[in-house]
Amino acid sequence: MGIWLEGKPLADKIKEDIRQQAVYFQQATGKVPGLAAVLVGDNRASQVYVRSKEKACQALGLFSEVQVYPGDISQAFLEKKIDELNRRDEVDGILVQLPLPAHIDSYAIICSLSPDKDVDGLHPFSLGTILTNRVGFRPCTPLGVVEILKENRIPIEGRDVVVIGRSILVGKSLAAMLTNENGTVTVCHSKTKDLGRVCSRADILVAAMGKEVFVKPEFVKPGATVIDVGINSVSDPARVKAYFGEDERRQKDLQSKGYTLVGDVHPAAFERAGAMTPVPGGIGPLTIAMLMKNTLDAFKRRRGIKTPPS
Amino acid sequence: MGIWLEGKPLADKIKEDIRQQAVYFQQATGKVPGLAAVLVGDNRASQVYVRSKEKACQALGLFSEVQVYPGDISQAFLEKKIDELNRRDEVDGILVQLPLPAHIDSYAIICSLSPDKDVDGLHPFSLGTILTNRVGFRPCTPLGVVEILKENRIPIEGRDVVVIGRSILVGKSLAAMLTNENGTVTVCHSKTKDLGRVCSRADILVAAMGKEVFVKPEFVKPGATVIDVGINSVSDPARVKAYFGEDERRQKDLQSKGYTLVGDVHPAAFERAGAMTPVPGGIGPLTIAMLMKNTLDAFKRRRGIKTPPS
Repeated sequence: MGIWLEGKPLADKIKEDIRQQAVYFQQATGKVPGLAAVLVGDNRASQVYVRSKEKACQALGLFSEVQVYPGDISQAFLEKKIDELNRRDEVDGILVQLPLPAHIDSYAIICSLSPDKDVDGLHPFSLGTILTNRVGFRPCTPLGVVEILKENRIPIEGRDVVVIGRSILVGKSLAAMLTNENGTVTVCHSKTKDLGRVCSRADILVAAMGKEVFVKPEFVKPGATVIDVGINSVSDPARVKAYFGEDERRQKDLQSKGYTLVGDVHPAAFERAGAMTPVPGGIGPLTIAMLMKNTLDAFKRRRGIKTPPS
Repeated sequence: MGIWLEGKPLADKIKEDIRQQAVYFQQATGKVPGLAAVLVGDNRASQVYVRSKEKACQALGLFSEVQVYPGDISQAFLEKKIDELNRRDEVDGILVQLPLPAHIDSYAIICSLSPDKDVDGLHPFSLGTILTNRVGFRPCTPLGVVEILKENRIPIEGRDVVVIGRSILVGKSLAAMLTNENGTVTVCHSKTKDLGRVCSRADILVAAMGKEVFVKPEFVKPGATVIDVGINSVSDPARVKAYFGEDERRQKDLQSKGYTLVGDVHPAAFERAGAMTPVPGGIGPLTIAMLMKNTLDAFKRRRGIKTPPS
């Protein structure tokens, strides 16, 4: 049995550093990093996500703006709004909350963002800078994964890394980032044969396919580092019991909220892992922290500020 | 012992198809696809490469232009020239021959290309479209690798693929392209531990690290497909003999040219491979064919032509 890699203390540390830099820039230049979020339609989950990002900005002293549009706006209208944000000086980062309504071409909207303000790191230009290993925005969740590995001094160089999942947001981006960190990276997905055997080679195993407890304990090489990016909601008491036994906190979750959160990795995998991120409280808190970090970086890059204030 | 995957016949087939389409477009629209090459300085190898691309255009009836500048031109001047090419209608593809002189920021030059005309596929936007798996230019050598696998009906989906080398031009791009083709892809490099063991898992092994006969026969799983992207020149008769025995053609090469070409894979690996690309005559001829194909595709995309003429 290994150690839990807690994301929250690291996220707090990163956010505190950003808060202090924002204070410094406010005093030194009269400006603070600013994030604009664009929310289209009335998807409840999207509203919650955008609200939590807005709150994070406010807590750190960053400028924050949320633009909310009805679900039936046109492609052209939305592109015009993005263009306005691209031009506004006080907006360093622009975040288009996905998913957009079905009649909107989301990819075209992402491509209309200025790469300078693409703090979600989803513009093809940003993604390309992962392959070129040059300055550019990296998607926030993969950034959080790299950050938690480094913070815990888990070496990547020369290690066998297996990433399960090939989303743009996590799997493919993270694989290229970990290759840049000198890991020997394999990307697995739904077409991979004998997935358990491939996983069991990994010194670092990243689960990011969005399937509840898909990674079984026997997929994990004893002593391996396991990064669980999945966040799945379970309300069935039998399944909660199968995953967590009689764990008190989980029972309490069930009673108070009607569900508890579980990752893409079976919790029992912790018995074999050398280190593992919990769900909740692992990668999740880091994602928003890295969004704030990208917004700060956008502010600095746009203003040609090279070093952090000391 | 397997079969040789010859690149020349496939390259000829691709080029003949392009030639016929160029004739069609000439007759139907009065326009043909056009490629502009930019050559800076007097690097002998670069001159030879640019000349061979120019000849390929001419043979296929494409418009071709070569701009040659002295090695001491400024960054700003070169960017202005690129900008002019970005705007010229008859130029569908722009190719900046690398390496550029040391005082030039090559990455900034590549970034100044219009992604619509980036037929070498090296602009970060183009590279990003590999990760998004959307329309965009792919680098020519990886395109050739995918093409030769498909032409020979070598399945990629679900196969273990190992790519050795993580250059932008080949390794990293190809790895993402083969992930898109549903292969289970591992990228190896100089920091990979126990490389021979990793390679020996591969159903498809791609050698693209630019080291003469680095891949030994024992790295190859019996029956695997071996793609040799390396092109190295050997002039030492003892090494030629060690690689090729008494092979007549190689002896002739040595006598007539003073060298022969060998890949990143030891020729004796052919004994274990199910299929293998020769050097020369494997991936090499496909690279220029795919450049011509990208130029044709640029022409069609810029003019909104969706289907090939029948």
